[in-house]
Amino acid sequence: MKRISLLGSTGSVGTQTLDVVSRHPESFRVEALAAGRNAELVIEQANRFRPRLVSVATKEIADRVEAHLPAGTKLVYGDEGLIEAATLPDADIVVTAIVGSQGLKPTLAAIEAGKPIGLANKETLVSGGHLVSEAAKRKGVRLLPVDSEHSAIFQCLNGEPRSAVRRIVLTASGGSFRDRTRDELVGVTVQEALAHPNWSMGSKVTIDSATMANKGLEVIEAHWLFDVPFEQIEVIVHPESIVHSFVEFEDRSIVAQMGVPDMRVPIQYALTYPERFASPAVPSLDLTELGKLHFRKMDYDRFRMLRMAFDCGKAGGTMPAVYNAANEVAVARFLTGDIAFLDIESIVETAINGHRPIAYPTLEEIGEADDWARRTANGYGR
Amino acid sequence: MKRISLLGSTGSVGTQTLDVVSRHPESFRVEALAAGRNAELVIEQANRFRPRLVSVATKEIADRVEAHLPAGTKLVYGDEGLIEAATLPDADIVVTAIVGSQGLKPTLAAIEAGKPIGLANKETLVSGGHLVSEAAKRKGVRLLPVDSEHSAIFQCLNGEPRSAVRRIVLTASGGSFRDRTRDELVGVTVQEALAHPNWSMGSKVTIDSATMANKGLEVIEAHWLFDVPFEQIEVIVHPESIVHSFVEFEDRSIVAQMGVPDMRVPIQYALTYPERFASPAVPSLDLTELGKLHFRKMDYDRFRMLRMAFDCGKAGGTMPAVYNAANEVAVARFLTGDIAFLDIESIVETAINGHRPIAYPTLEEIGEADDWARRTANGYGR
Repeated sequence: MKRISLLGSTGSVGTQTLDVVSRHPESFRVEALAAGRNAELVIEQANRFRPRLVSVATKEIADRVEAHLPAGTKLVYGDEGLIEAATLPDADIVVTAIVGSQGLKPTLAAIEAGKPIGLANKETLVSGGHLVSEAAKRKGVRLLPVDSEHSAIFQCLNGEPRSAVRRIVLTASGGSFRDRTRDELVGVTVQEALAHPNWSMGSKVTIDSATMANKGLEVIEAHWLFDVPFEQIEVIVHPESIVHSFVEFEDRSIVAQMGVPDMRVPIQYALTYPERFASPAVPSLDLTELGKLHFRKMDYDRFRMLRMAFDCGKAGGTMPAVYNAANEVAVARFLTGDIAFLDIESIVETAINGHRPIAYPTLEEIGEADDWARRTANGYGR
Repeated sequence: MKRISLLGSTGSVGTQTLDVVSRHPESFRVEALAAGRNAELVIEQANRFRPRLVSVATKEIADRVEAHLPAGTKLVYGDEGLIEAATLPDADIVVTAIVGSQGLKPTLAAIEAGKPIGLANKETLVSGGHLVSEAAKRKGVRLLPVDSEHSAIFQCLNGEPRSAVRRIVLTASGGSFRDRTRDELVGVTVQEALAHPNWSMGSKVTIDSATMANKGLEVIEAHWLFDVPFEQIEVIVHPESIVHSFVEFEDRSIVAQMGVPDMRVPIQYALTYPERFASPAVPSLDLTELGKLHFRKMDYDRFRMLRMAFDCGKAGGTMPAVYNAANEVAVARFLTGDIAFLDIESIVETAINGHRPIAYPTLEEIGEADDWARRTANGYGR
């Protein structure tokens, strides 16, 4: 019985994690659920999974939730509540499915508490890569990737020494606008941007797929997760999202991981590793039914967010945190209709051009860079 | 320094093995070369690699070779000579690159001598699967596959327990005639059959690719090598030979091995396992240059040799030995122009229909079944 603390339970990865858990009740138990502002859903989840602890974003939401929790479930809130969920003594693994740079602190707290991490919050490694890697190494804590691309690389590297790796290749579907030119991106609507062809994901990640910022964050995450320099990380376009990523070894042998695009497979693998459980709800991939797989070069002029991510990753220090925070604000502003799609790139570009990175920043310095980037991104065009 | 005994040094896999060895002179040394009838080539190889031992097929060939060997190289011949090469005390690994069921005895001898096997002779496991598996287990000897498909599966299974495997899928290029109907196979020439679209291989294997007997032998080999029932082995057509084979795990995750079709990669991996060396002569696979990969269902009516292989594999006992021996004779007869292409199937069908299999046969009983199948195949149509 593996006892799980799930941070970000009401989001896309969170709900899919609970779907996986509910299909293997003999193997998993939910000990803590940390949600944000979705009171209704967290109440439903709490009554279904009867965790020891529930955490929500604020006192106000806690007040709305309190009366509806099952007996014996403790309720906490705010940053402190989130940390309590992340460090719950009874949890065997902490799944960090929170979206955004707010995932960094609780993930670090969970690592310091010696918990293996099911890492779905990519911003953790983007903003605090050196701190998180150092802490995980020091505490002997395993970071088990939940992202399909990183889970793929993790599976392909299985048992192979890093010295044997020639390059890591992340595949990108290209997102909602993969067949449009830059000119055709002028005036696209939020609705169009949210129509991802392959994956069912939250709105932030779906927009990030359309701008290729998502792949940019994944590149930086892969750098830290697999200890591979940016020069050995590549991105190619693979519209079908069947080959989830691959590794080329020194002997020119490539090992790839594939499957139907369903987040429950990598989520489950992070929970069951090194074992594999059956995935009753996920169909088997039939390549002969599909018939063809397509691959093409990444166009870094078309997808500038990806080029900027490589640049920020190589610059290091606080630069990736700025890239990420500016992008978070820009996406939020696009989603509310405040800015146009291509403004997302301009906002991030403005932020990173205006930032003087600090090398090996502390958590506080990362927080300050993050705040600065958010203010800059919020001020853009006003 | 890994010391190698190479059985079948003048064939396609043999010469490619020496190519690999010559690119890593600091890591490999050839201790023994066992050739067949190609005196000229084995003399050249012996002078280049200066092995401790050279073995050839017959006394006559030995007489032709003797004067041209370097000083200090011992010359032996015949079955006894081959066994001496297979069991050479100084060898750290024996590569069995002999074609045909004659590979069984020396491979068994090498296993009994405790040598790890670089297994390129698929007939070893087809004819004597239960004997070879039992001996390898008893002696704690590793069978390292050299065939690209089995090397792929071996790499995909890396570190995974067999219980996690849902199915093994071997890819087949379809061979020289993949786009022809059965009617269009009437009257094809030897020349046409030898024109394999992707792989540079010996003539026996190339004809076996055209009939799909090669994939049939590989299915039976995979059954023994990976201890997987035939019901969990599938074959699909993949014309490009880029995805060399893959494994689907219980969680619906697929791990595939890919690369440019070059036998030197799996040969080298068998020699360096668990390490990987650079492959200086092999180009890196660029999927974006290729653009597309194609997959389609296997047509078992079109490729009857493959269906027969599954049937013989499931029947077990001496049946796979009969399938293989009849096929060896049939291919030899086709290559000399004695029979038509489709007669290969008819010969094998006649042999397996006329054979009453012996379960758990001894080496002697396998030899008798093999002899009987050869006589039957030789008598066909005369």
